[in-house]
Amino acid sequence: MVGNVVVGQSGGPTSVINSSLAGVYKTAKDLGAPRVYGMRHGIQGFLERNLVDLDDKLRSEMDIELLKRTPSAYLGSCRFKLPEYDANPEMYDKIFALLEELEIAAFFYIGGNDSMDTINKLSKHADRIGSPIRFIGVPKTIDNDLDVTDHTPGFGSAAKYIASVSKELIRDGLVYDQKQITIIEIMGRNAGWLTAAAALAKCEDCEGVDLLYLPELPFDIDKFLDKVERLFLTKKALVVAVSEGIKTADGKYVFEHGVHTEYVDSFGHKQLSGTATYLANLCGQRFGCKARAVELATLQRCAGHLTSRVDITEAYQVGGTAVSAAFAGETGKMVILKRVSSDPYICTTDLYDVDKIANVEKKVPLEWITEDGTYVSQELINYIRPLIQAELSPIMITGQPRHIVVDIDRI
Amino acid sequence: MVGNVVVGQSGGPTSVINSSLAGVYKTAKDLGAPRVYGMRHGIQGFLERNLVDLDDKLRSEMDIELLKRTPSAYLGSCRFKLPEYDANPEMYDKIFALLEELEIAAFFYIGGNDSMDTINKLSKHADRIGSPIRFIGVPKTIDNDLDVTDHTPGFGSAAKYIASVSKELIRDGLVYDQKQITIIEIMGRNAGWLTAAAALAKCEDCEGVDLLYLPELPFDIDKFLDKVERLFLTKKALVVAVSEGIKTADGKYVFEHGVHTEYVDSFGHKQLSGTATYLANLCGQRFGCKARAVELATLQRCAGHLTSRVDITEAYQVGGTAVSAAFAGETGKMVILKRVSSDPYICTTDLYDVDKIANVEKKVPLEWITEDGTYVSQELINYIRPLIQAELSPIMITGQPRHIVVDIDRI
Repeated sequence: MVGNVVVGQSGGPTSVINSSLAGVYKTAKDLGAPRVYGMRHGIQGFLERNLVDLDDKLRSEMDIELLKRTPSAYLGSCRFKLPEYDANPEMYDKIFALLEELEIAAFFYIGGNDSMDTINKLSKHADRIGSPIRFIGVPKTIDNDLDVTDHTPGFGSAAKYIASVSKELIRDGLVYDQKQITIIEIMGRNAGWLTAAAALAKCEDCEGVDLLYLPELPFDIDKFLDKVERLFLTKKALVVAVSEGIKTADGKYVFEHGVHTEYVDSFGHKQLSGTATYLANLCGQRFGCKARAVELATLQRCAGHLTSRVDITEAYQVGGTAVSAAFAGETGKMVILKRVSSDPYICTTDLYDVDKIANVEKKVPLEWITEDGTYVSQELINYIRPLIQAELSPIMITGQPRHIVVDIDRI
Repeated sequence: MVGNVVVGQSGGPTSVINSSLAGVYKTAKDLGAPRVYGMRHGIQGFLERNLVDLDDKLRSEMDIELLKRTPSAYLGSCRFKLPEYDANPEMYDKIFALLEELEIAAFFYIGGNDSMDTINKLSKHADRIGSPIRFIGVPKTIDNDLDVTDHTPGFGSAAKYIASVSKELIRDGLVYDQKQITIIEIMGRNAGWLTAAAALAKCEDCEGVDLLYLPELPFDIDKFLDKVERLFLTKKALVVAVSEGIKTADGKYVFEHGVHTEYVDSFGHKQLSGTATYLANLCGQRFGCKARAVELATLQRCAGHLTSRVDITEAYQVGGTAVSAAFAGETGKMVILKRVSSDPYICTTDLYDVDKIANVEKKVPLEWITEDGTYVSQELINYIRPLIQAELSPIMITGQPRHIVVDIDRI
């Protein structure tokens, strides 16, 4: 059942989330969708009728190419958890009234856990009221923490960025003939997939990071210092990768042990920064060495200048699969990636019930972390390696990556 | 006078310092130098006879290409200020004895201010003792703070990196439909050239950063907050670029106004980090908005994955010019870049007395900063723009930039 389509992006941006949008748009048009609407700032914008007609915006094949290579959500994003139907039936009525008015046949939401929850709730409501509108989730998150799917689009590019800059930081650390330690802080509140990607820096021309700490295991500050002390016996320049979310056994974030004021952002989230700074200062004081903290920060999710072609291609494919599936009658599903083999790397797409995926957080299996909790297994490295392969260069204009923009946001 | 050559790298690394090394090596070999020695960790390693024969290390044209694309000092670096002759004549005797033993005709030092000071002192000593050995300085610093030369190799790539990632961070900031501020902290203790490069993010597809603060002018925290408040009246997502070295009128670094413990590294340098964190927290508290700090940190000087081809080419050229000049009889000089025109960009190399360059720090002229001290002039943008043009892609192997290594440093 081909018809009008509406698509939104939600949650934290990635370098390749727009490639999924391109996949949805292009496939919908190729399959004959009369109109493809984009929600500005996800479901929150949709509720305010903040929509664009993508035909007006994407006018050429060049626009599609630019879109694929533009980091950060082109349509804008939101962090909005749809209330349960019983808590706010009016909101559901409003959404479905607008969907009907726009004659929408299929609704696509590109995002992570919260976004899959939205797809789950809306598809259930469609079922409840007998609406024929299809709802399909398109996976996206650098965190790689969605269940069932082999991995999530966005992760491969973030992993490539992390592996590559870790390698550069390791080289930089070797420059001086002196004792020094670099602590790299990597995103991931609860899941250590991104931090694990720093292990890929190790190759023929690079010794790799010396220690890796994931949030899946409690972090022991004393054991860490002992470990560093032992490493300094045989090596001058150390590089340690830590997840921003590591906690000590008492449940306190490591950075909370520092002297920083506790800072809660306007959403009440604790600001997770300062883990690397805290540990670097600690090492500097303890070992009397040069100690540097490098927080990869937001660049991990928006470094469109260094993306994985495998990732950008898969991001496009999951968008396309979502549209074909919806037009073939599927609803209440998320597109998943199914790895057929790692070497050679073969991966296909499939569909899975979104209610079995939404709100489940996939962490790094403990058997993929070494026993002493300071590195990851070869299995984990082999799992990530294919996802960072090959590049899709940005289109460079006057020395900088060119992006496509909807418009500049103003109040 | 063609003969054996010795070359060293000193000071902070850059993405293209090895391209200058490649220029020195290749030109020396092309002009017939029998041996080209590399000092490990600069003059400090030289004093310990820590040398490599570069013919053993650079065995093919591919090695030269890899060297040009490998960030961070291939030979290792040092931060070592040569004492005055009178303070330590033995050190000079030791250096010249080793130079004579190795039958060195020319000595090249790739670096910034301190390195030029070394060239100055050694060439004066050669003059004093009637040694025929030539000493030529090859400019290098991301900070662009060397005098006389139009700009320094290393600056263009750092500027390209800063401009490009600023653009990506600006896009990322636009994603949510909410008030938020991002503070980007950029290197530069006393000179604002690198921070100014963030102004290049502004182009057709990007509004650019909203405010830019250079260390050349005192920073007024209240005026900054007023400025942000006014900007928030018409715009939701703000991005501000600040130099790590900005100080308030009382001479205190801005980050010292924060709650961080003061941390001095093992060299007694104050650790300049936390300026962005301090200002972001301040804005978050004052305006109740999401506030992020992004420190570009070490990545500015080692992001070999995003270099300027203009810069990498010029870095090679200054290395080559140094060698031809030395073999033609010059000494006590630094190679400078002379801009013939900006549009089209034409730049040549020349030589200049190193004693007029060493120890002079070139800051951004105040007339290139806007009157209210919150942005830079079009002249400054036009000055930087040509230096970030074109790319030299890294050689990518299994998804990551490949580097060339001497060996892995061990104690």
